[in-house]
Amino acid sequence: MSRLTLEAASIIVDAALAQARRDGYQPLAVAVLDAGAHLVALKREDDASLMRPQIAVAKATGALGMGYGSRELAKRANAAPVFYSALFAISGGAMAPSPGGVLIRDEGGRIIGAVGISGDTGDADEACAIAGVIAAALTPDPGGAPAPQA
Amino acid sequence: MSRLTLEAASIIVDAALAQARRDGYQPLAVAVLDAGAHLVALKREDDASLMRPQIAVAKATGALGMGYGSRELAKRANAAPVFYSALFAISGGAMAPSPGGVLIRDEGGRIIGAVGISGDTGDADEACAIAGVIAAALTPDPGGAPAPQA
Amino acid sequence: MSRLTLEAASIIVDAALAQARRDGYQPLAVAVLDAGAHLVALKREDDASLMRPQIAVAKATGALGMGYGSRELAKRANAAPVFYSALFAISGGAMAPSPGGVLIRDEGGRIIGAVGISGDTGDADEACAIAGVIAAALTPDPGGAPAPQA
Amino acid sequence: MSRLTLEAASIIVDAALAQARRDGYQPLAVAVLDAGAHLVALKREDDASLMRPQIAVAKATGALGMGYGSRELAKRANAAPVFYSALFAISGGAMAPSPGGVLIRDEGGRIIGAVGISGDTGDADEACAIAGVIAAALTPDPGGAPAPQA
Repeated sequence: MSRLTLEAASIIVDAALAQARRDGYQPLAVAVLDAGAHLVALKREDDASLMRPQIAVAKATGALGMGYGSRELAKRANAAPVFYSALFAISGGAMAPSPGGVLIRDEGGRIIGAVGISGDTGDADEACAIAGVIAAALTPDPGGAPAPQA
Repeated sequence: MSRLTLEAASIIVDAALAQARRDGYQPLAVAVLDAGAHLVALKREDDASLMRPQIAVAKATGALGMGYGSRELAKRANAAPVFYSALFAISGGAMAPSPGGVLIRDEGGRIIGAVGISGDTGDADEACAIAGVIAAALTPDPGGAPAPQA
Repeated sequence: MSRLTLEAASIIVDAALAQARRDGYQPLAVAVLDAGAHLVALKREDDASLMRPQIAVAKATGALGMGYGSRELAKRANAAPVFYSALFAISGGAMAPSPGGVLIRDEGGRIIGAVGISGDTGDADEACAIAGVIAAALTPDPGGAPAPQA
Repeated sequence: MSRLTLEAASIIVDAALAQARRDGYQPLAVAVLDAGAHLVALKREDDASLMRPQIAVAKATGALGMGYGSRELAKRANAAPVFYSALFAISGGAMAPSPGGVLIRDEGGRIIGAVGISGDTGDADEACAIAGVIAAALTPDPGGAPAPQA
């Protein structure tokens, strides 16, 4: 099993932000967590609003917490809102059900971390997350229906 | 970049309350926060109920946290209740999705704080907030469709 | 029994800050709470650090919570640190044991609120709190040995 | 008044870690917060233990909350443990009293943020924080007696 290094996490953060600037997205926060849902790297762009880091972390934490990307988490939460409300309370407000929380898998398919992004639409956030993980030569798993990959 | 001074915040609070008395609104709490969502000035009128200060602070915090006024926050929360429920938990109960949380922008358009008001209807609260910000020669940004300005 | 009005609370806040400027103290936060320990008015001066409002509120809350000014609270907490540590946890982190939390009594001696100040030394904070309460023609009760009154 | 940009924060983080590797310190977490105590950038090195990001953030938050670097905060907390215990509870566990939380001042002396580092001794953490701030052409303010600058 590989481990998510700071070197890989830094590539993910910077490549995700490069993609956001290339596509003219709103200012973002990008967080990369390891397999234990602990922060490895985070950047918040100038003019991103105050809650963006927490939301980014919560998208990644939700993905790691349930074992599927936050696109799938959003789909399931909307289909079963009462259970997922309880779950969000169980987690102590640590999970965000919106696309942009993408699992990071190694070459063997093992989950070694997750990236979470907040600031633009869920679709845009997720596209940047996927671009970041690919830039680090790792495999993004956004959950749910496949999203377009850069 | 300007900074929100106590002098400006005091004008906002007093002008908002003057507007409320002129229009015969219910007793209000008015809170002014800086760009980092920290309190600068707050007043609660006689007979305003106990939770009004917290709600006023939470309207302003929600606007700063997400980067749009609480009228827009209310609209989005009603359209996507599951995500916003999670978000309110992520914030630790720090955000209130109802009109009356108005961003304060300087002459260059930069967010330098927010005012939150609670006590009457969301529309009335917001009208007083807007009047307060205008009295301080700053620019109110309530979010969503423009609200009538005093 | 009198009630602490917003008018009186506003006088207390502004007179306390006028005293601080006259005496050249550090930038302060001043909070006035009613008899139920709910905020009535608060101001934070420019350059006062971020935690000052919470500390000011906690000095006042501690005074109301125990029935004596925070000078007395500090004295008792230092004499019995284990019990008071538990008490601070019981309160959910709502009490600050340092001078500057002053009970406000009406002409009959009844507690109608408290003022809390943070930013300079406890002695300076308390002197401003006392000056504020006197300016509103109410009776300050700082707890412990009598402090010099303006 | 300057604003702490992501560009400056990224320089601070990377220069602090470069200093740590040059001096052979333990693996570190480095966090840079803006003036409102909100995260701008964070990196945790490989093999840094799990709590390091939170401690780094808490050193910076404590400095911003009180208006002095965490070296001074540690000194005061050791001299007045009862008051500071209460304060740590008031902050909701957001402040860490140990060297390594360094205020960031702009050319006019205004506080525009703080950096917090955890992983090695407080002295080593602080030395890296100072090196990072200097690399960004900003002014470090560690609090208390001046620490040796790289």
